[in-house]
Amino acid sequence: MAANTFGDAFRVTTFGESHGVGVGCVIDGCPPGHHLDLAAIQAAMARRRPGQSALTTPRDEEDRIEVLSGVEADTGVTLGTPICLLVRNQDARSSAYDEWHHIYRPSHADFGYDAKFGVRAWQGGGRASARETVGRVAAGALAEQLLTARFPDLRICAWVERVHRIDAAAVIDPGAVTRALVDAHPTRCPHPATAAQMEAEILAAKKRGDSVGGYVRIYAQGLPVGLGEPVFDKLDALLAQGFLSLPACKGFELGSGFSGPDLTGLEHNDPYHWAPPTSDVGRRTSDVPKMTTTTNRSGGIQGGISNGMPIDGRLVFKPTATVLKPQASADDGGNNVELQAKGRHDPCVLPRAVPIVEAMTALVLVDCWLRQRAQVGDPWPGLRGPLHADGGPSPA
Amino acid sequence: MAANTFGDAFRVTTFGESHGVGVGCVIDGCPPGHHLDLAAIQAAMARRRPGQSALTTPRDEEDRIEVLSGVEADTGVTLGTPICLLVRNQDARSSAYDEWHHIYRPSHADFGYDAKFGVRAWQGGGRASARETVGRVAAGALAEQLLTARFPDLRICAWVERVHRIDAAAVIDPGAVTRALVDAHPTRCPHPATAAQMEAEILAAKKRGDSVGGYVRIYAQGLPVGLGEPVFDKLDALLAQGFLSLPACKGFELGSGFSGPDLTGLEHNDPYHWAPPTSDVGRRTSDVPKMTTTTNRSGGIQGGISNGMPIDGRLVFKPTATVLKPQASADDGGNNVELQAKGRHDPCVLPRAVPIVEAMTALVLVDCWLRQRAQVGDPWPGLRGPLHADGGPSPA
Amino acid sequence: MAANTFGDAFRVTTFGESHGVGVGCVIDGCPPGHHLDLAAIQAAMARRRPGQSALTTPRDEEDRIEVLSGVEADTGVTLGTPICLLVRNQDARSSAYDEWHHIYRPSHADFGYDAKFGVRAWQGGGRASARETVGRVAAGALAEQLLTARFPDLRICAWVERVHRIDAAAVIDPGAVTRALVDAHPTRCPHPATAAQMEAEILAAKKRGDSVGGYVRIYAQGLPVGLGEPVFDKLDALLAQGFLSLPACKGFELGSGFSGPDLTGLEHNDPYHWAPPTSDVGRRTSDVPKMTTTTNRSGGIQGGISNGMPIDGRLVFKPTATVLKPQASADDGGNNVELQAKGRHDPCVLPRAVPIVEAMTALVLVDCWLRQRAQVGDPWPGLRGPLHADGGPSPA
Amino acid sequence: MAANTFGDAFRVTTFGESHGVGVGCVIDGCPPGHHLDLAAIQAAMARRRPGQSALTTPRDEEDRIEVLSGVEADTGVTLGTPICLLVRNQDARSSAYDEWHHIYRPSHADFGYDAKFGVRAWQGGGRASARETVGRVAAGALAEQLLTARFPDLRICAWVERVHRIDAAAVIDPGAVTRALVDAHPTRCPHPATAAQMEAEILAAKKRGDSVGGYVRIYAQGLPVGLGEPVFDKLDALLAQGFLSLPACKGFELGSGFSGPDLTGLEHNDPYHWAPPTSDVGRRTSDVPKMTTTTNRSGGIQGGISNGMPIDGRLVFKPTATVLKPQASADDGGNNVELQAKGRHDPCVLPRAVPIVEAMTALVLVDCWLRQRAQVGDPWPGLRGPLHADGGPSPA
Repeated sequence: MAANTFGDAFRVTTFGESHGVGVGCVIDGCPPGHHLDLAAIQAAMARRRPGQSALTTPRDEEDRIEVLSGVEADTGVTLGTPICLLVRNQDARSSAYDEWHHIYRPSHADFGYDAKFGVRAWQGGGRASARETVGRVAAGALAEQLLTARFPDLRICAWVERVHRIDAAAVIDPGAVTRALVDAHPTRCPHPATAAQMEAEILAAKKRGDSVGGYVRIYAQGLPVGLGEPVFDKLDALLAQGFLSLPACKGFELGSGFSGPDLTGLEHNDPYHWAPPTSDVGRRTSDVPKMTTTTNRSGGIQGGISNGMPIDGRLVFKPTATVLKPQASADDGGNNVELQAKGRHDPCVLPRAVPIVEAMTALVLVDCWLRQRAQVGDPWPGLRGPLHADGGPSPA
Repeated sequence: MAANTFGDAFRVTTFGESHGVGVGCVIDGCPPGHHLDLAAIQAAMARRRPGQSALTTPRDEEDRIEVLSGVEADTGVTLGTPICLLVRNQDARSSAYDEWHHIYRPSHADFGYDAKFGVRAWQGGGRASARETVGRVAAGALAEQLLTARFPDLRICAWVERVHRIDAAAVIDPGAVTRALVDAHPTRCPHPATAAQMEAEILAAKKRGDSVGGYVRIYAQGLPVGLGEPVFDKLDALLAQGFLSLPACKGFELGSGFSGPDLTGLEHNDPYHWAPPTSDVGRRTSDVPKMTTTTNRSGGIQGGISNGMPIDGRLVFKPTATVLKPQASADDGGNNVELQAKGRHDPCVLPRAVPIVEAMTALVLVDCWLRQRAQVGDPWPGLRGPLHADGGPSPA
Repeated sequence: MAANTFGDAFRVTTFGESHGVGVGCVIDGCPPGHHLDLAAIQAAMARRRPGQSALTTPRDEEDRIEVLSGVEADTGVTLGTPICLLVRNQDARSSAYDEWHHIYRPSHADFGYDAKFGVRAWQGGGRASARETVGRVAAGALAEQLLTARFPDLRICAWVERVHRIDAAAVIDPGAVTRALVDAHPTRCPHPATAAQMEAEILAAKKRGDSVGGYVRIYAQGLPVGLGEPVFDKLDALLAQGFLSLPACKGFELGSGFSGPDLTGLEHNDPYHWAPPTSDVGRRTSDVPKMTTTTNRSGGIQGGISNGMPIDGRLVFKPTATVLKPQASADDGGNNVELQAKGRHDPCVLPRAVPIVEAMTALVLVDCWLRQRAQVGDPWPGLRGPLHADGGPSPA
Repeated sequence: MAANTFGDAFRVTTFGESHGVGVGCVIDGCPPGHHLDLAAIQAAMARRRPGQSALTTPRDEEDRIEVLSGVEADTGVTLGTPICLLVRNQDARSSAYDEWHHIYRPSHADFGYDAKFGVRAWQGGGRASARETVGRVAAGALAEQLLTARFPDLRICAWVERVHRIDAAAVIDPGAVTRALVDAHPTRCPHPATAAQMEAEILAAKKRGDSVGGYVRIYAQGLPVGLGEPVFDKLDALLAQGFLSLPACKGFELGSGFSGPDLTGLEHNDPYHWAPPTSDVGRRTSDVPKMTTTTNRSGGIQGGISNGMPIDGRLVFKPTATVLKPQASADDGGNNVELQAKGRHDPCVLPRAVPIVEAMTALVLVDCWLRQRAQVGDPWPGLRGPLHADGGPSPA
């Protein structure tokens, strides 16, 4: 009922409040026998953690992961049992929030939690803080390891496409973006010139005690076909749930998205095309024809099922709700008051959202893979090549 | 695993293929003792069914609902046991699809189902057809009955806001739209002049054998505060999942959505304000102060929890994939072919999407209500008025 | 929440009241591409249906199954989509229950449903009737087809071991029992002499307007190792849930069960033994050593996981609550009354319980198989032969 | 899929291996606003922990609980968010298991885990160890707090009824047993003379390097009516699942259980009886008539729903599989070997099973309560008194 668990076959339950003892997750359903790469998980944590640059909150958290269960101590191999990962909070200055104990910060979750539960962890947003995503990023890093072990062509990559009114969509070729390019600039926009503009925008907002929002683009190449569960757990529906469950995310579009209606059906449809066996359609040569579409307005998903083309989507994050200027607000006693925030905050959540969006994507994909394996088996029909060939190549 | 079930406390499982025996749903978890208004459910079916106007597919389905279980025969009272609702298919002309048995229709789900399952119901799209939504609309109509019995102020209303490039957003006041206004025009756009333009656009596309997409706006007033489950089943996350699970829906935004980053945090935040007890903030006068926000860029949901303001969102539907012009495509044997579609189709799914979006919204809300009742009880803290009042009005 | 669904990967939702329109189920998660043998399902229904002999209720139901969805019409192949199976009620004489509208029948579910829901389907027990198991038996028959296609050695067999005080345990060799032997006598006890005694006992009880209970033995051979999910969904825990969810079942024991404490640990432990590759340990010869235990007090399950030995368990069913003698009881208005039941009933549910127990077993096993496939893959490690061999046979 | 989670509305996920870093649980769905009594939880841990007497394993674990999340630090109030409880392992002597790294201990879970996962935590049984129940007992103690706050009459009590061949059933009046009586003797049998015999039996087995099993009786008084979810999550079905998921538990019977068939239906049925309002049917006087049954062969549950009478059941635990005599066994390389166990073990798990059985019962009951609240509300129809009274007392 209460929903701190995501996924069906690869189930991640996150726990922990922003200013409590710690945050973490329990992963249930992880395939056994995987050599868990803890350093890679720790590296993912480093990409998410605060204090990376002047663009993010100065809260200083080392975010060191402790593996409490589910992994063989001497070999690092997953046991198939629940993996509990814990990160203790270190730099939790609860006193900074004293004045807000009874005041609802505008566009924050404070009032919602009070209205729902009659009580709330008023220090730092509790579970509504982005600190909750520590568990998601750790689990997502493990999910990505499992996925790439099975699908070596898979590359999940997100980046900052827009900050406030500065938009880099037109100048970025999604298929060419790598995490190295993304991480080359603290904004996590892979187009250096635009990234510099974005940085200036964020620093200006910070200086004013204001904040800005923007877009994150998510792009995943090298997916197997057949992922996604009709009808309610369509691949795009699960991505939408996962993304909208992220703090500050206010929308998601896939492929042509909100621009799709600019076109008519004839213009919008993605024609199918069997790419010949010898062509290099991914990073590898294939020995059977591979289904492609000559355009990808569908964003890699049709009828809720991956078609093998890149997943291409866009998320919008609102401007950070915490700003350091006085604002009209209300308290929990029925009084309308003025709130003067202070303390630490992210003037723009976008750079830190990038690894979180990638993690969420990996969590959806690994879950869909295992679910597919349950119902159909692995490898499943049509994973590669034509299904019903007449004298042609036989199905995989 | 396989996910033909939506909801956690109010669980709806849909079944049936477009051209099979029938379609329907099983509803598990329905509160007992409710006088099921079958006529209201049938009326909802009528709003969804094909053949309503020249704008929709001429497939003629009466969509008469048969109640197979869960309701006391003589009184019509829900028993608290599973309610199975069945609609038999009548006008299923499978032969119209013979030529497509082995051809994947562009931007349809055909290839995805084949890739996933190794088999597909190739007549009319099987489960991927909008016909699957029969069960959702029936269950949603029941959900709405339950909700309005408990929350009499609740009004869920969706409408067509845009068709192709014709957009009515600027000329519609969301708070003033009613279903009667929406249904007054076959396009289901409540602004008559714009509706007429949309109608012309759809008919022109139909004449050309082409299709168009657009936007549906969803607006729900009179919600209780506190609905939505942190962290993964946030109210907006569940709506996003539900909406993206609809055929042809390619995106969802809440409140300011993709326009949010145009503003800075200071501009974007929604200031809280206790409206005095005597004011008429909904359709009813309240006897305690009521929390409001002076703007609603959050779209009624903050931190994944309803704040009592209207839920305000927007969905995009791509142009219908079925068009009657020749298109490049591929078959299931590895051949690239040309497809000449024929038969019946919706040149624009938007008008029929309206009741489906409303149903999906009701399904999310009823589920969140029952889940809230499980964890916190009903009525729950803060349902009305200030929570921690000093000498002020006591909490409900 | 409300739990009319069983299983996680192979999900069966049953619906329908005893005296409503019909009963049935929706199966979600069925592997695609299976040629559904409808005749075999119908045959399973025939074993469950009432009116088979003088030992069972004379209610006459043909129990003809209608497949509403999920199967390709022309080929009978499962589509991977929800399979809805419906059986309409025919011989539902609701009027026979008129007098009991307000009276709670002793040891029936009437009071419980009223206490829980505030309303109940008072005709014939509604969902609490054994008629609800129609959906289970249909789904279980499909489950068994899927299992035997994958594990050809699997044989699930249940039988009546005891009726009232007549117990056949000592004279039956479980490994030698077949369904043909079980069905050879209307009591479904495979030991003809004891079966005759049981029959006389049942008929005598019937003549007196009384009823009797007994034991059902469940025995499943040819299982793969590794089925069952630690820790809460242990194979025996799921069986226990499934069996105790059957009407009138009041207990379940596995292996040595309630006799286990007669022995000490040393006496009770099942020694492991690798049977050599050439031996015929099942119905087939194996090409690798196969793990066995030289005794089977564990009943084929250790630590909640199948060890490859036969599953061996026992269920107890109480005497049928419906008896035709006057009984003290109470009504729903606070009055203590005398109840004079009449009408049709099973003087002993045991014979009809046999196919239901087998179906429930198949539902548990198929679910565990698909869940295993999700997490570990198929075939999984150790499915056959030693896992970590030093110069010995390699793992499967 | 993988099932380390129990419950639907009150979800408990346990994690941790016997000889890993620690064990614990995450509780999701806990009602907010509850003053968590940590001392009471710690006291429950003390009843479960090893090293309590000469009858149990000498492994010395303090089992101190750390609350990582979900509780307000300064007030101890539950936040409605996930509660993570951690107990670090202290006295984990993994080296004691070195010799068993490749040998399957008879009637242990070793082989099953290897067969399932291809890997296992071979030190001390990993997840199959009774140490996993630390998380259950902690969560169960919290569940009991919540239940008794809502249902003050509720008393959940378990005790050791039988050890090896010494059975106390005939000399114990279940309704009179209290936890204080149970805990008065290290065997946890509330009949002192029989307890002394049991103690001698256990110590004799210990001295021989052998072990013994027995029965635990579970008895819960003061339950509300209406708990339990038809049809698959019947209250007894959930108890059966929960109990059979406990290490070494091989069977469960409710009420008359396996003795039920000794009686005929007429003899076995429990007559209903409205107890007058003034009578003291529980520990409190009631102001409306209260439904009772004059016998309780149903064990407090009919049709899967609690009827307000005491829940009365019995669990069997096999003799501890770990014995210190040489045994025939097999290794993971295909060899048949002799195993000489050594180290620490419980010669009889029964005394420590008592608090675990109580915890499991509380977990089932709290979950059923919250599920009932979701579907029907709290208080629900018929919670007290007649439902449909004619001029009599009105329903609650």
